[in-house]
Amino acid sequence: MTDKPRKATASAQSMMRIFTVPEAPESTLSKIEHALSEDLAGFLTQSIVALEKPLSEIEEDFQAYNIPTEPTFVSDYTEEMMQNLVAHSVHTAAPSFIGHMTSAMPYFVLPLSKVMVGLNQNLVKIETSKAFTPLERQVLGMMHHLVYGENTAFYRQWMHSATHALGAFCSGGTIANITALWIARNQLLQADGEFPGVTSAGLMAALRHYGWQDLAILVSERGHYSLGKAADLLGIGRQNIVSVPTDADNKVDVAQMRTAAERLTAQGVRIMAIVGVAGTTETGNIDPLHQLADLAAEYQCHFHVDAAWGGASLMSSKYRYLLDGIERADSVTIDAHKQLYVPMGAGMVLFRDPKLARAIVHHAEYILRRGSKDLGSQTLEGSRPGMAMLVHACLNIIGRHGYEILINNSLEKARFFAGLITAHPDFELISAPELCLLTYRYVPRQVQVALSEAVSKAEWDKVALLNSLLNDLTQLVQKNQREQGKSFVSRTRLQPARYQRQTVTVFRVVLANPLTTEQILRDVLAEQQQLAEQQQEILQQLQLAGG
Amino acid sequence: MTDKPRKATASAQSMMRIFTVPEAPESTLSKIEHALSEDLAGFLTQSIVALEKPLSEIEEDFQAYNIPTEPTFVSDYTEEMMQNLVAHSVHTAAPSFIGHMTSAMPYFVLPLSKVMVGLNQNLVKIETSKAFTPLERQVLGMMHHLVYGENTAFYRQWMHSATHALGAFCSGGTIANITALWIARNQLLQADGEFPGVTSAGLMAALRHYGWQDLAILVSERGHYSLGKAADLLGIGRQNIVSVPTDADNKVDVAQMRTAAERLTAQGVRIMAIVGVAGTTETGNIDPLHQLADLAAEYQCHFHVDAAWGGASLMSSKYRYLLDGIERADSVTIDAHKQLYVPMGAGMVLFRDPKLARAIVHHAEYILRRGSKDLGSQTLEGSRPGMAMLVHACLNIIGRHGYEILINNSLEKARFFAGLITAHPDFELISAPELCLLTYRYVPRQVQVALSEAVSKAEWDKVALLNSLLNDLTQLVQKNQREQGKSFVSRTRLQPARYQRQTVTVFRVVLANPLTTEQILRDVLAEQQQLAEQQQEILQQLQLAGG
Repeated sequence: MTDKPRKATASAQSMMRIFTVPEAPESTLSKIEHALSEDLAGFLTQSIVALEKPLSEIEEDFQAYNIPTEPTFVSDYTEEMMQNLVAHSVHTAAPSFIGHMTSAMPYFVLPLSKVMVGLNQNLVKIETSKAFTPLERQVLGMMHHLVYGENTAFYRQWMHSATHALGAFCSGGTIANITALWIARNQLLQADGEFPGVTSAGLMAALRHYGWQDLAILVSERGHYSLGKAADLLGIGRQNIVSVPTDADNKVDVAQMRTAAERLTAQGVRIMAIVGVAGTTETGNIDPLHQLADLAAEYQCHFHVDAAWGGASLMSSKYRYLLDGIERADSVTIDAHKQLYVPMGAGMVLFRDPKLARAIVHHAEYILRRGSKDLGSQTLEGSRPGMAMLVHACLNIIGRHGYEILINNSLEKARFFAGLITAHPDFELISAPELCLLTYRYVPRQVQVALSEAVSKAEWDKVALLNSLLNDLTQLVQKNQREQGKSFVSRTRLQPARYQRQTVTVFRVVLANPLTTEQILRDVLAEQQQLAEQQQEILQQLQLAGG
Repeated sequence: MTDKPRKATASAQSMMRIFTVPEAPESTLSKIEHALSEDLAGFLTQSIVALEKPLSEIEEDFQAYNIPTEPTFVSDYTEEMMQNLVAHSVHTAAPSFIGHMTSAMPYFVLPLSKVMVGLNQNLVKIETSKAFTPLERQVLGMMHHLVYGENTAFYRQWMHSATHALGAFCSGGTIANITALWIARNQLLQADGEFPGVTSAGLMAALRHYGWQDLAILVSERGHYSLGKAADLLGIGRQNIVSVPTDADNKVDVAQMRTAAERLTAQGVRIMAIVGVAGTTETGNIDPLHQLADLAAEYQCHFHVDAAWGGASLMSSKYRYLLDGIERADSVTIDAHKQLYVPMGAGMVLFRDPKLARAIVHHAEYILRRGSKDLGSQTLEGSRPGMAMLVHACLNIIGRHGYEILINNSLEKARFFAGLITAHPDFELISAPELCLLTYRYVPRQVQVALSEAVSKAEWDKVALLNSLLNDLTQLVQKNQREQGKSFVSRTRLQPARYQRQTVTVFRVVLANPLTTEQILRDVLAEQQQLAEQQQEILQQLQLAGG
């Protein structure tokens, strides 16, 4: 905060005023809100500075550690935050910012968010959420139907049942994945005769009772990092997340997964869950879900599908076949704040069997009484906001056909962009888009020739040298492009089969924003080429190494 | 949803429109937003129906399980939701709704929430949050300073350090408590020689390595239910949350806790953490924190303080002595969406030692790279919104003095209400307010006389009969008062020492809403008396039983 004089002083009257008197229409904050409502894209473009300021400089504005003694005028505070915070935030809605999973949002979520915040419901219990409870259950029901497609009788029976749940609403996909694996663990180590179950007795006693050395979770090496977090949290241990290699298409190698399952079982380790990835974060590929479902059935373990990002593609009747087998999962994670176009903070986990959530049911005296319909008795989180309202709004206002158009466009835009990259002599497509995510890198045409010759001759040291130089180049180009502020692609590191699993740094783009045009994609490539050509030193080294 | 015809059809054009064209100023949604911004209290009072509709009837409006095929017009959707959802939500901001921890909010959080949603930052990483990252770290720094009061050099060194954290921002107190205990477990069972630590090897291997039978967490019987959830999730087991009795003031009996610690240690169980409660959810009391800190030091275990609700009282220089000893805690949970007057979805856990969060650090290739300042590497949640902005706004705009006034008023209002209850011949104060929470019940004066006679003569069967009838009465009055829609108190069940731990149903009120007046409190009591007097049957039974 700056050190400008603060004129406000706290008094009983001034404190009552902030709870009762709305902002004057001519105030700074009102004007900003108005500008934002009129034209969000314009507001963001004008308010966020294009040229990046180094983080260390931004931090200088956030050094005060004392809560200020006296109040700050709302207008002063707002002006300061426009300068120090909003100006240096990230324009996640920009159509040329194609490096992350955040997109432009439908305009109506803004005013509806305000209604949601104004109502300030607490979904943990009926007493503080009332109609929001059946609304949230309906959202879970609709998403359950999208995945599992059960019949009317099923939803009539379970959707609003006090002792069942078709899913759990969460702040995001990480909590959703943790919830799924928590349920899987508790279901496997349930009460048995005298043994009261892992919930009550803990993991040590449970493993002793069942006579297992350890538990294991099998997942592709492309599994989301939240699974490791879940294994840590649940006491299973990160080394018991068995990371199974993928094939050339970044899909898990089921034969290797079966081998791992056999080996672990022989060692007295119980396979607790198999996790299928439906849309990997880094390449957007989908595991062979039917084969994983078969394997899970064979090992009688929980089958979870992490479709946090890819799940939205189920809306497309044209492309939903890509996720075939997802309906055999015991649980499925889908984030609404990704390609369902809801603001940040809306994840879900869906349960095929409405009784599944009983594995984690809990009660308390003052809330969550037995028999109540309080949502909090079956969720990891306690108090939480009515975000389900925004999902409900999007599902209704956009509709299946609306989403179909949005999803199909995004997938087809990714195919278009992959085409551009493939046709361009100086770019190399690293992973082709299965959904709307793809990876690539800049490789000058002569280096491409040198690389493929070296590969065909199995000169892996040469390949490694070239890749190492290309990695530096990709990293620099990505950083410089971000700092120029016109467009943003992210980067990650992959181990493509074609380079014998050498580590390769790549550009990663997610084409979820409906406002991203083909021209923008052409411009992104042109800008990258230009930035790459500025790196004379690396380019010369590449030429030398490739010669 | 109703079955009225939907005229909208999805097209590429209509889908682009919802991402680009703002709501027209004369539209239904714009009008609603305007009304809400102009006068939130008036909007809520007019939009939420006073008379409660049974949940089963509300559920009828949320039966559809198909995502609608075609789009719905925003105006149609909005009108429907005003009728089906908003009308049957809970007026959590009403000054006469004193049964929960949700209050009226300062007006400026509404427009600022809209700015937050419009910016749609994702705090998991710098790339999608930029200046929001130092802002969140500053909020954690300010709250850390409120609790621990370290010096300038401390905050200069640690507040923005990439490899340290003064706390973690979460969606709520449950995640905060889980995070604290997760850290405590991982810290205790850390890597040791060849042993890679519980994070990696899991709980079974960790307990074997350290040679402990089990872990235990000691906490008062008034501990929040989220602690049981944490014990379940972390694999410790609910039965290893050792629930220690409280004294007559609902504060944990430290002598009994020490006895439990001795007994467990003798059994080979390692005390993992002692949890102090600073503001129990049911009675608002604060454990003797210094004594608990001493005990934790003695047993070399983690000392966590759950001040989710009570922590805000640290803002009061007049009353913060009530929480003395909190500065000795290794970790402290404080919810901003309780008495810091921030909307739902803002919790925090603070760490005395900035290195503590290393026990749960995790990385991933595409984000959370080593050395980055990405907040996500030290949080339980992954993607999450910029709620810290609203806490930052409240801390700055209200200031320490502003909060002091608000907190002092709420505590003094609770003392006033306790006085009203004590002075009233037909009410019994069950737990006096230490902070702004108290419990009581309606007991006709003759029954009070009969009860205290029976107690003094140790006629416990008679006491039990009277309490059982009074419990029915309290439950009915609470339910009827809620249904009348004018005011709301919650209820819970306690085991007061004066009745030899017999279970007693009580009214529970939290006086956090600055708009609750003394007159409203008088009216609440008057309404309860009137409702109780309508229960002729129970009153007659009470008379008979007391005779």
